[in-house]
Amino acid sequence: MADKFPLRSHCPINYALESFGDKWTLLIIRDLMFNAKESYSDFLTSGEKISTNILADRLKRLEEMGIVNKGVKESSQSKVVYSLTRKGRDLLPIMLEITRWSGKYDADTHASKAFLTHIEQDRDKLIAAIRAGW
Amino acid sequence: MADKFPLRSHCPINYALESFGDKWTLLIIRDLMFNAKESYSDFLTSGEKISTNILADRLKRLEEMGIVNKGVKESSQSKVVYSLTRKGRDLLPIMLEITRWSGKYDADTHASKAFLTHIEQDRDKLIAAIRAGW
Repeated sequence: MADKFPLRSHCPINYALESFGDKWTLLIIRDLMFNAKESYSDFLTSGEKISTNILADRLKRLEEMGIVNKGVKESSQSKVVYSLTRKGRDLLPIMLEITRWSGKYDADTHASKAFLTHIEQDRDKLIAAIRAGW
Repeated sequence: MADKFPLRSHCPINYALESFGDKWTLLIIRDLMFNAKESYSDFLTSGEKISTNILADRLKRLEEMGIVNKGVKESSQSKVVYSLTRKGRDLLPIMLEITRWSGKYDADTHASKAFLTHIEQDRDKLIAAIRAGW
């Protein structure tokens, strides 16, 4: 990866920004992680209305960075599907902390109160439960 | 904020991306949070070499979003300094989880092994200790 994407620095915050520091990448990861989306056309239906060229670019980058796997669906060998790798799944704690922060500060958040309470009170158990389902 | 920055959605991941989903904003937050930087010229010295126009734009946005406060230094009334608001400080758990993830996957990470172990083993205590210093 170092050659393909030369980093501005190896500060851990910067490494993350070079991996998913844009307005779209984490939405794709969200859809894979929480919304049972897996195909190119699934991602296009999300509310934020990602464009086809940005989606194709971000999926390619995510694959090159080892965050997402590209494969074919077992039940239909012609259908291309995406899934999170271990590296991608390890973004779960970041996603939950982001959800907590937004749930606190966005007055119109779509995060459910029950889910936010769950993160607040049982974060580690919630992470373990989600991981057990993978 | 809703009028000034109409959101694509109120999904909590999207709210966060609309707040700091770019290649630079979290670097400024990092510098304020961990590196004792506070002035415009401080931020310019960081290794990633942010440009003056991007820095000015991001500081303005951060202020408008209530993540950063702009003020004058007590010891020198002419010096403009920035600090994190409560909303900005509440990004700490996200920053630590990002550090943990990058520390795990960037072979050349600058995150110290001691700090990563601290996050891994004593995350909540570490957060409490940092907050106590604010």
